[in-house]
This record gives sequence, C-alpha cells and structure tokens, in this order.
Amino acid sequence: MTTPLLESPDDAPQAGASTSQPRTHAAAQVHLPVRSEHAGIEPYGAPQLDVPVLLNVNENPYAPSAEVVATIAADVATAAATLNRYPDRDFLGLRQDLADYLAGESGVRVAPEQVWAANGSNEVMLHLLQAFGGPGRTALSFAPTYSMYPEYARDTSTAWVTGRRAEDFTLDPEAARAAIVAHAPSVILLASPNNPTGTALTREVVEAVCEAALAVTPHGAEPGTSAVVVVDEAYGEFRRAGVPSALELLERYPNLAVSRTMSKAFALAGARVGYLAASTTLVDALRVVRLPYHLSAATQAVARAALKHSSSLLAQVDALRAERDATVTWLRAQRPAALGGAALQVADSDANFVLFGTFPDRHAVWQGLLDRGVLIRETGPEGWLRVSIGTPQEMTAFKDALVEVAGL
Amino acid sequence: MTTPLLESPDDAPQAGASTSQPRTHAAAQVHLPVRSEHAGIEPYGAPQLDVPVLLNVNENPYAPSAEVVATIAADVATAAATLNRYPDRDFLGLRQDLADYLAGESGVRVAPEQVWAANGSNEVMLHLLQAFGGPGRTALSFAPTYSMYPEYARDTSTAWVTGRRAEDFTLDPEAARAAIVAHAPSVILLASPNNPTGTALTREVVEAVCEAALAVTPHGAEPGTSAVVVVDEAYGEFRRAGVPSALELLERYPNLAVSRTMSKAFALAGARVGYLAASTTLVDALRVVRLPYHLSAATQAVARAALKHSSSLLAQVDALRAERDATVTWLRAQRPAALGGAALQVADSDANFVLFGTFPDRHAVWQGLLDRGVLIRETGPEGWLRVSIGTPQEMTAFKDALVEVAGL
Repeated sequence: MTTPLLESPDDAPQAGASTSQPRTHAAAQVHLPVRSEHAGIEPYGAPQLDVPVLLNVNENPYAPSAEVVATIAADVATAAATLNRYPDRDFLGLRQDLADYLAGESGVRVAPEQVWAANGSNEVMLHLLQAFGGPGRTALSFAPTYSMYPEYARDTSTAWVTGRRAEDFTLDPEAARAAIVAHAPSVILLASPNNPTGTALTREVVEAVCEAALAVTPHGAEPGTSAVVVVDEAYGEFRRAGVPSALELLERYPNLAVSRTMSKAFALAGARVGYLAASTTLVDALRVVRLPYHLSAATQAVARAALKHSSSLLAQVDALRAERDATVTWLRAQRPAALGGAALQVADSDANFVLFGTFPDRHAVWQGLLDRGVLIRETGPEGWLRVSIGTPQEMTAFKDALVEVAGL
Repeated sequence: MTTPLLESPDDAPQAGASTSQPRTHAAAQVHLPVRSEHAGIEPYGAPQLDVPVLLNVNENPYAPSAEVVATIAADVATAAATLNRYPDRDFLGLRQDLADYLAGESGVRVAPEQVWAANGSNEVMLHLLQAFGGPGRTALSFAPTYSMYPEYARDTSTAWVTGRRAEDFTLDPEAARAAIVAHAPSVILLASPNNPTGTALTREVVEAVCEAALAVTPHGAEPGTSAVVVVDEAYGEFRRAGVPSALELLERYPNLAVSRTMSKAFALAGARVGYLAASTTLVDALRVVRLPYHLSAATQAVARAALKHSSSLLAQVDALRAERDATVTWLRAQRPAALGGAALQVADSDANFVLFGTFPDRHAVWQGLLDRGVLIRETGPEGWLRVSIGTPQEMTAFKDALVEVAGL
C-alpha cells in the first residue's frame, strides 16, 4: 500500500525545520475512521424523560426495600476496604449464589462452573457472539423480537438474519427448523418470554430449535460443529404457572445457553448484572473472550447482597404477575372508539409488560398518554404499544389515561 | 448452502413418531462453533496466588482509607435506593467529575462531553477498537508493550501489528512514522508510561505519531479519513516531574484520545473504572458502540465517591513515586553474582513499577522470590522482571529476597 505521507510543507523533513509553531488541526477538517455501519447511527436507548409514571422500559416499580439497601451498603463497604486490589476474576462466589438461586427458582441444579455473568444481559450476549459469532458467521432470531439483538450482531461483525413469528407471535417448530437450515447460523437467539410481545415459546419449539442447531453446520464454522442456541429468559421469573423454563433442557443440550438478568425480577436494573447457565464447555468459551476483571468487586457485592433477599424480592414478582394478568384481562375487555368498537388485541404475557393494539395511529395514543404523565413504549409491529407493569397506582393512572385517549 | 439436516432416525419426520423419549446429547459429542483464533487459548490473566507480598499486577498497595470507604458506602446506599431503575445512560455527572479531576491534575480543561468512561480501561479500549478498528482494519503498537492490546484487537477482529521500540524502550519518531506508513493502521496504541517497561514517551514522538496518523489513509477505511491515536496513560499520575501528559496535545489533535484509569492512582482496581479524554467527535463515535447502560449506578457512585477524595489519594501517589525512585536507585547500585558482578539494567520508570534485568534465568529468580513470599511478574523481553511498587515494608521484603536469590 503506497499512502502519500508528509505532503504538507511543515511536515516535510527539511533540514533545520522548526517545530516552534505547533499546528492545531480543526475538528471539522479531520475525519475519523468511523465504520460505515455506524455512520449516522444514534446511540441505542429509549428516551429518558422526566414523567410521573414510567412504564416504558420494563423496570420493576418496587425500589429495593430498606433491608435490601442496608445489606447492599454493608456488603459494598466490606468490598470497598480492599478496592485497591483487582476483583476476583472468576467470581466463583457469585456464580455459586446464582446457581443456588436458579435451583430454587426452577428446580434445575447446575454447577457454579456452568454459570456465567457480566455487566447486564447485553454483555452476556456480547460474549456469546464474540465467542460463537463474528465475521463470516450469522446470528438468527425470529421477529418481532428484542431490538438490541441486531446491535450485538453489528458490534461483533456477525451477519444478522430473522425468521418470522406467526401473527399471534408464536413460533412454528417446522418454520424454525427451515430457517435454521436456510441460514446455517452459528448462534440462534430465542427470547422467551419474548420482548416486546411478552409471549413465551413452547418447550416443543425450543427442543426443535436445539435439535436443528445440533444438526446444522454453521456457515463460517468448522465442519462437525453445531450452532449454539441462546434462550433469553430476561423475564423468566414472570412466566405463568405451567410455562416451562428452558433451564430444564440444559442437561440434554450442551449447545444451549439460558440467560437471565437481575434487572427485572430482582429489581436491580441499576446494578447491571446479567447471567446465564449452560454446559461447562460453553461457559469456558466465554471465559476466553471476556475482558479480565470484567465484573467489579462492587458489582459482585451488590449482586450477592440482593441474592440474600431473593425470597422477599420474588414475592414482589408474584404481585407483579397478578397485576399483569389483571391488566391483560382489563385490556381484553375494552372496545375502544378508536377501533370502531372492536376489541383490543392483547398478546399473552409471561413477562412484566403487555403488548396491546392495534391502533391506526399508535403514536397519537402514545403521545396522549405522555401528555397525561404516563410514559409507555411505542414498539413492536405497526399499531402495537407496550406497557410495563407498575404499581397498582401506576396501572390505574395508565388505565385512566388510556380511557381518555382511546375512548374506551 | 445445502446442509444435511435430520439425519438421525429419531429426528426424521415420521408419521406418528413419538417424542416421549427425550434424547440427551453428550457434551463430548457436540462441538461448539468456537472461533479458530480462540482455539486452545487460556483466559488472560496473571496467576492469582495467595502470597504475603503481592507485587505482580501493579496494584496500589494502599487500601482505601476509612474515610474513603465511608463515602463509598454512603453514596452506594443512596444509589441503591433506586436500583430498580436503569442507571444514567450518559453518566454526565461522572464525566463532569472526571473532567474536573483532569483539570486539577494536568492543567488541561476539557468539557464533560469530551470524557468517556467504561468498566476498566480495557472496556474503553474495546470501545475504541469497535468504533475505529474491526474487520479489514489494523491496529498498531510498538513492542514491548501491554500484553492485553492484541487481545482487544482479536476481540474486535482487528489485525494486530507491532513496530519495535529501541533497546532502551524509547521510540524513535522517524521509526514510528515509517511504521504508520507501512501498516496504514486505523488505530495506533501508545502506552506512556509504557507497561511493562515503565518508560514514558517524549512529547516529540507523540506529536510525530499524531501528525503521521492525520496524514495516513487507514487501510480498510474511507478515503479522506485519518488514523486515531490512543495514548494509554493508565500510569500517568506516576510520571516524574517534567514529563508531559498527552492531555496537553488534545486541543491540537481531534484524532487523539488519552486514556486513564482509576485502578492505579485512585487505588480502585476493584471498582473497574477506566476513562479517556478526546474530541467530542471521537467520544460520540464511542457512544454508538457502547452497550446501553454499560456503567452501573453502583460503579458511577463508587467512582464519584473516590473522586471526592482525590487530593488524599494523590498524596499516596507521591509516596509511591518516591518509593519507586528509591527502588530504581537501589537496583541500579546492585552487582548481582548472577550477572557476574555486572550492574543490573533498570529501565527508567514513570509508573508504579520497575522493570529490571537481565537475568540468564529469570524464571529462577522469579521462583526464588516467590519461594520467599514475594510475587513479582515474569514479563517483558527475555531476561527482564517487573516489580510493582508496594509499601516500604513490602519493598524491603522484595529487596531482602532479591539479595538472597540473585546474590547481590
């Protein structure tokens, strides 16, 4: 490569050239080598608005109790006394605590070496795509689904493709198999309960995907390898009675990872702790791509402090599930004037939010709610809106506002 | 692509096929699509051994004081009360505090929008390479230098090349320019003070690199773009009087980023806070690749708490610099029997560690020290060893052990 260098006179190697006049380069005249796929892209994130009722990013409305705050403060103080030292790089204490929690929540016992954690589920996903995706490879999911997935793919230079869910947001096992054969992905991302629809996948479809993933040779990978299946159960604790967790399939599928987060059920979105359970082999591949010491001593302390309170925190999950079911029932009973008296469509929800619609002008409904102090999310397929489950008072505010806005 | 699917009998779509016998796939028979560049790689990290005197990973030996711990605990408790909400995604409070700190430390005032932070300098570097490196592009540094750099390049599928420093670990401006022309990198990483050598670069060479980076068209980038220069000042606060910081060049070079960390001078390795200052344009490119909410509310609180104590923490830096200079002086006076009575070579140090050698069998020296309860690092060019600066008591233990082991 012959790149012209030193074209400007004051850079040229002249005998006795003076450097006493430092040159300043105006930002407008310097062009940074931003990647073309990032050109013009705005940083991802929902608008952070100052509104009385925040039902837009599926946060848990219940702030940590005084007891939880006290445990966190005490445990962080203990950790702070040695913050001059690097944190435990393999965080086996936290991994043990998470394994114990999962055993209690789902009945599935995994070893601490089968658990992985990172700064939010999104870093967990990044690790998965760094390890198993990357240039020349493809990640597959089924739309409509979580809008961050294509960002993880872009961040790791992984090709991104989607199959389609059915009109009712279910996924047909045969359609899923066909998409896997057609695209030969190395990573398949299944959100269940799905965001933004709230719907969970059946065990049958997750099994079919795991089997098809084993049978496929991923594009860009060595012959004889299989695809990895990631079931994203960020909202897993909110699933209805009888809805299975993919954790139950871990024993059968070494190519399966089931991810969870402390953001939702543990009401800890601010702490940024996501994790997954998988085979030891799969976890060991993530250890290679993680940045050393990626989980701070403070993060480990906060997470372990909250895990000490899992039973009281899960009691709040039960209250939110009841509020969620009541919201679904209420929405399904409505006949909005905006829809000419037809019933609202409301997706089944196993999460802490509900997707409903479809409105000819959903933005007008979203804006009408915002004008009344209620922020929900304009997301999902055209015409749908998503509302997070808040406190009973917040849901009353939401319903009152919706009655006014949509003419219920 | 025609991938054979469903080859095994129990997967074949047979009329009336039973699924009542779930199949379990043994881990040994399933091969995950691990990327070839990760095959056989061990996760990065120095051995974490339980030894009385830890002088191996350049930690600050002074644990946070009771006052610092109290501030951290109180501020984290405040943050914990709203941990159910996502953290401030743009962390402008922390960025303002870091800008204020840099102004006090270096005399260079930048706006908060010119500051970026992440979970450790290593995540800052990852963001830089995600934004400006990536497939088809090249990152350049000058060896010997920090051993994590090639990992960041690998993690972002960026090609990794190195030029050479001179025998005394200095970098010649003309050699640096020539390497930039030859490799046409999109990112140039300069550690100064360098790890593991401890040596700082002159202002002249940093300027020469910045100018050459502006003049080059990076391989794989758009015509008309320039390379980005990253000066990694993780150990910047330990530089000797009169040694400049590259922060002073920020005003002149929109393609320059100067990174720092709270791990060393702030004695906060466990908190994982790295940051940089650069032009707003450069920082905005990092905002596109960061995962949303990458800095937890706890991390932001811990960092801001420590920044309230920067003057007392920097007083400890002064003590460590004095201990460092004394260690260099002592080592330079030694004539080890292991070297036949010749003087030890000791690199100039502007960091909180010292590189010394060269030993015909450095591993034996390292092991001998470890046997005496002193863990240092076997790193750098062949024959050299690196010792972190500890407390006076720890340095006495180190010197006593070295006298025994190397026959001083």
